[in-house]
Amino acid sequence: MAVAKPTVAIVGATGVVGQEVLKVLAERDFPLADLKLLASGRIPGRSLRFRGEEISVEEAVASAFNGVDIVFCAAGTSVSEELVPKAVEAGAVVVDKSSAFRYRDDVPLVVPEVNGADVSWHKGIIASPNCSTIQMVVALAPLHKAHPIRRVVVSTYQSVSGAGAEAMAELEAQSRAVLAGTKPTATYLPRQIAFNVVPEVETFRQEDGYTTEEWKLATETRKIMHAPDMRIAATCVRVPVYRAHSEAVTVEFDHHVSVEQATEILKAAAGVKVIEGIGKGMYPTALDADGNDDVWVGRIRQDVSSPNGLVMWVVSDNLRKGAATNAVQIAEILSS
Amino acid sequence: MAVAKPTVAIVGATGVVGQEVLKVLAERDFPLADLKLLASGRIPGRSLRFRGEEISVEEAVASAFNGVDIVFCAAGTSVSEELVPKAVEAGAVVVDKSSAFRYRDDVPLVVPEVNGADVSWHKGIIASPNCSTIQMVVALAPLHKAHPIRRVVVSTYQSVSGAGAEAMAELEAQSRAVLAGTKPTATYLPRQIAFNVVPEVETFRQEDGYTTEEWKLATETRKIMHAPDMRIAATCVRVPVYRAHSEAVTVEFDHHVSVEQATEILKAAAGVKVIEGIGKGMYPTALDADGNDDVWVGRIRQDVSSPNGLVMWVVSDNLRKGAATNAVQIAEILSS
Repeated sequence: MAVAKPTVAIVGATGVVGQEVLKVLAERDFPLADLKLLASGRIPGRSLRFRGEEISVEEAVASAFNGVDIVFCAAGTSVSEELVPKAVEAGAVVVDKSSAFRYRDDVPLVVPEVNGADVSWHKGIIASPNCSTIQMVVALAPLHKAHPIRRVVVSTYQSVSGAGAEAMAELEAQSRAVLAGTKPTATYLPRQIAFNVVPEVETFRQEDGYTTEEWKLATETRKIMHAPDMRIAATCVRVPVYRAHSEAVTVEFDHHVSVEQATEILKAAAGVKVIEGIGKGMYPTALDADGNDDVWVGRIRQDVSSPNGLVMWVVSDNLRKGAATNAVQIAEILSS
Repeated sequence: MAVAKPTVAIVGATGVVGQEVLKVLAERDFPLADLKLLASGRIPGRSLRFRGEEISVEEAVASAFNGVDIVFCAAGTSVSEELVPKAVEAGAVVVDKSSAFRYRDDVPLVVPEVNGADVSWHKGIIASPNCSTIQMVVALAPLHKAHPIRRVVVSTYQSVSGAGAEAMAELEAQSRAVLAGTKPTATYLPRQIAFNVVPEVETFRQEDGYTTEEWKLATETRKIMHAPDMRIAATCVRVPVYRAHSEAVTVEFDHHVSVEQATEILKAAAGVKVIEGIGKGMYPTALDADGNDDVWVGRIRQDVSSPNGLVMWVVSDNLRKGAATNAVQIAEILSS
């Protein structure tokens, strides 16, 4: 399409990702003619600030998409399923953050640093991947390009913001309860998350015992990286962290790759920040990634259990590069 | 030796593990003639309760071991290095929780469910393994016996109590600071642990970038399981949990092993509690393991990245089975 100054709408503008999209659009000085903020259900009188202006939040209904060029859909899957086709029908291109359309053959699934060119074949919808996927592929793709990857084993340490504002509030309330010596209640997340770790992100698949999050991490990685044969097994775990996901990633190449080779490749890679060296505190943590757009990679070392393997520690802010920033980067390709 | 009612001493009695040993001795009704509580450095006037009696804590010096049959050494490595030989010289058998003697060929490293028979060849010292090792081998050994394991990739989610009482206090103080909106300080642990995860447990090895904790997990597993060729790569991560370690364990056998086969083996294994089934909340978490002696195994599933692989989630209380209980079980073999 390439509208230089598009009219933009954000569906789910009041959610944690929606508000982050608003912030990233302002920070990156995204060129836009007009901005509409939409939310499903009525939020009477609610408004949000953008570039010093108060913009009132309208109800996300089909008619709201008239005249809109780009829609960021930062709502849940069911809202996306209902509204995205209506936005496309109204002539908009939709960057969808939900998993509703990610696995369709006619929908590109895009991480700009990895497969930005896939934006070109969209038919109205471009899907933005799952947060835990985005940070992993930003680190894996440049390695894979130089040295084919056969297999990935990944364990995640995922923050509660991936489950929305309610989960963040629940972590805080539970933490206060534990520290006050009272019994915390788990209503939004499946188990107590304060001072605990929970190996359940999203829902369980009865057919294989993996969670949908674990399945997404594997399936989306293969699609984004155009690597249908890459073997990927994930364990996704929620940890009591507000923002940013960490991942212990074990990579098996089809030949030996040294730590030095991998480090050089990653240092030259777009969107990656490498922490080099070995020592106390010399690695990224969730707190380092919180609020910025980098995918931080540290603790790159040989896999002592495999001659062709490397192990690394990958951290990124799930609301920024894992969600809002990636979506805005896709929109930048659209409007460039 | 087999003294039916031994005189027992605990070195490091006032530490988190020492106090847990005291509790476990009472709970298991360990038969003892006398109990001495020792601590390095002077703790004037300090006493601890055992079976309704106040026992004063004495200074841990060589003369304190006179007449003692079994010594539990639950202090740091440097204290063990100094005091364990003196206790042996005084005629005691030492169950040492530190890593000071674990890798010596003349010192058995014992997890009773796995290699209890190794107690028999001790020469005065029996080492109890690292907490993260113990829970993993309790789960791996019965599987390995039936179906040889070639390779293990493990990511840990380790509680702060593994770093002692100071680390537990630091987690609490930092959590309170964050919730109060003030800046937390990290003095004991290498980075802020409250609302964060930190991939640094113990210290870094310059030669390969692994931490000593990760190296121990591999080296000790091979020694305990008599499996010198087993390939093991670990990423050890500290999480803001008070007690109990969780581990995402990926196991590669030399042939296909089904989830059903593995589940049946683990259900029949000593010290293991299996959580079967797939669904919301159907897995162990640190909070479930806190305060009990079981090694909990859940989320047993095929490794979708390897035809001969399984993935599982292993949780246990690092102060109980991971430390105190394992040491007391060793002493039970000694005095039986």
